[in-house]
Amino acid sequence: MNINALSYNDGVLTLLDQTKLPHATVYRDYTDYETIARAIEEMIVRGAPAIGMTAAYGAVIGARQFTGDAHFTDYMENVIDRLWHTRPTAVNLMWALNRLKPLVRDNPAETIQRLEQAAHDIFKEDAEINRRIGEHLLEVLHDGVTLLTHCNPGALATAAYGTATAPMYLAHERGWNIKVYSDETRPRLQGALTAYELSQAGIDVTTITDSTAATLMQQGKIDAVIVGCDRIAANGDTVNKIGTMPLAICANYYNVPFYVAAPTPSFDISLADGSRIPIEERQSVEVTTLNEQALSIPDVPVYNPAFDITPHKLITGIATEHGIIKANKEAIIQLFEKKEITT
Amino acid sequence: MNINALSYNDGVLTLLDQTKLPHATVYRDYTDYETIARAIEEMIVRGAPAIGMTAAYGAVIGARQFTGDAHFTDYMENVIDRLWHTRPTAVNLMWALNRLKPLVRDNPAETIQRLEQAAHDIFKEDAEINRRIGEHLLEVLHDGVTLLTHCNPGALATAAYGTATAPMYLAHERGWNIKVYSDETRPRLQGALTAYELSQAGIDVTTITDSTAATLMQQGKIDAVIVGCDRIAANGDTVNKIGTMPLAICANYYNVPFYVAAPTPSFDISLADGSRIPIEERQSVEVTTLNEQALSIPDVPVYNPAFDITPHKLITGIATEHGIIKANKEAIIQLFEKKEITT
Repeated sequence: MNINALSYNDGVLTLLDQTKLPHATVYRDYTDYETIARAIEEMIVRGAPAIGMTAAYGAVIGARQFTGDAHFTDYMENVIDRLWHTRPTAVNLMWALNRLKPLVRDNPAETIQRLEQAAHDIFKEDAEINRRIGEHLLEVLHDGVTLLTHCNPGALATAAYGTATAPMYLAHERGWNIKVYSDETRPRLQGALTAYELSQAGIDVTTITDSTAATLMQQGKIDAVIVGCDRIAANGDTVNKIGTMPLAICANYYNVPFYVAAPTPSFDISLADGSRIPIEERQSVEVTTLNEQALSIPDVPVYNPAFDITPHKLITGIATEHGIIKANKEAIIQLFEKKEITT
Repeated sequence: MNINALSYNDGVLTLLDQTKLPHATVYRDYTDYETIARAIEEMIVRGAPAIGMTAAYGAVIGARQFTGDAHFTDYMENVIDRLWHTRPTAVNLMWALNRLKPLVRDNPAETIQRLEQAAHDIFKEDAEINRRIGEHLLEVLHDGVTLLTHCNPGALATAAYGTATAPMYLAHERGWNIKVYSDETRPRLQGALTAYELSQAGIDVTTITDSTAATLMQQGKIDAVIVGCDRIAANGDTVNKIGTMPLAICANYYNVPFYVAAPTPSFDISLADGSRIPIEERQSVEVTTLNEQALSIPDVPVYNPAFDITPHKLITGIATEHGIIKANKEAIIQLFEKKEITT
């Protein structure tokens, strides 16, 4: 597991260009917050936790770019606002920036130091959170388990371990036999990233088209589905990559447990239910082309929502760093009250 | 609707090369049954009814190729056997060849004439069957309807009208406002063929990834799902392109009517249920590459079943040329007894 989605060193943010994977491993250095904002928009970096961390380092770099032509706090407001509006669905982005906002002072040097420390903290916490999520999920799994996942909720989407992949890495470290089916995840095929990172770690992983997942469940071959998430509403409704919700419906139909791996920063308890979560609609070109090659007839309209909303009743449990909870309002309120988590 | 998947004239079968669509319209002429068998295997022609017709004309052309070096009836047995084993799932293939088999005589000239007539009859009947299926489906639809379909159950898969697309063409001819969402249908993206032929006919069609269908149902935007089929067992379990079964589960979850369009040659009442229907597993290269470009990591195993089995309980009705019937054993037995259909 030597793959890092992002790293930061003294004013330089390095991103692994995930649009080039798995064919080429290209790292890009960033020293300009506007270019970092575009990297998030263009999905050079992706995955809710990784987006949050990238935005945090983007704010640090923005602070370092201050030239003194404007009032510093106004300038920082603009920097954070630019990063805030890169992608609308993953709440980790807003969570990370909200954590940085109150640290801004009139003094640029002091602010840079404070923001840098906060970004490092977010990074370290993310790895620790994921490890704990993985350990909690191992409690409901067993040696010999076959898991199904969707999109890339892996190390490439986080600081380390991934969210939904954390139990896979930990099980493999413990010497368990595990098998993973990885949905290719149209339109952008982020499932290839999951297949790539799991196979690099020596985990038995098989790629399937998204439509094949239900057949594996029908055949009784899947012990559990584990997915990541971009935002969870107060009632447990979960927004994640398009294709998650039909997986949950099929898992429910075939009595396969369906778990969402969710660090607490992925919760947005200000929203009563999933229908309030903004769903990003992306360009049709993502569906009609791949690697700049036309896939289908270009002059037909395309509807391309990037995420879907899984009704909370279809979710067996939400695995957080504090344990696995039920996907309902009571359990989520209890989680936030007990842990005194600030959002 | 000027697109023809196949046509035959005096010993020459012409196929529209569907692997080149929608980018290029390439017709290929065939005068050799072995090359026709390979065209079916390589999906130059596809769709259950079109495969049946192509195999029938393949047998005619095989008979014409006879050189007199062997016993004619033995030779014809080999020809039919070769065509029979091109693809295992669509029963129309076996149905068409079973209809031709008893027409073989010792005399090649007489046999050619008889087979040619039978192939022409199958072709003409197919167009008529589809028109009737479309008319029956219009009875349960209405002006302003929004439909969802999967794969290409269209004119390109049949002699004319298509099966699941027949009501769309007929509704459009009647001046109804209709809207169609077309699943792209990974791995081979046959949904592009549906988008292509419907848009050519002036029908409002929007392409979506397969994973997006459930979101449209959740949003209440789909009035009915209509799909084709490759084989229906005696109890109504339906085998169709991979991705059909999760669509049916989601339609059931969101209370969207789910219809299967099925000419009677698509029924196989010799099989008690769907689990007896052989499911073709195709090469991993269909998933890992597109237009010969690598899509995902090549050294990870791929599971690529071409079809799935939709449990009959999820099907609202099966639209046949004799009317819409319930998807259960009693209704199917009644259909075959009443109509005295030979299989």
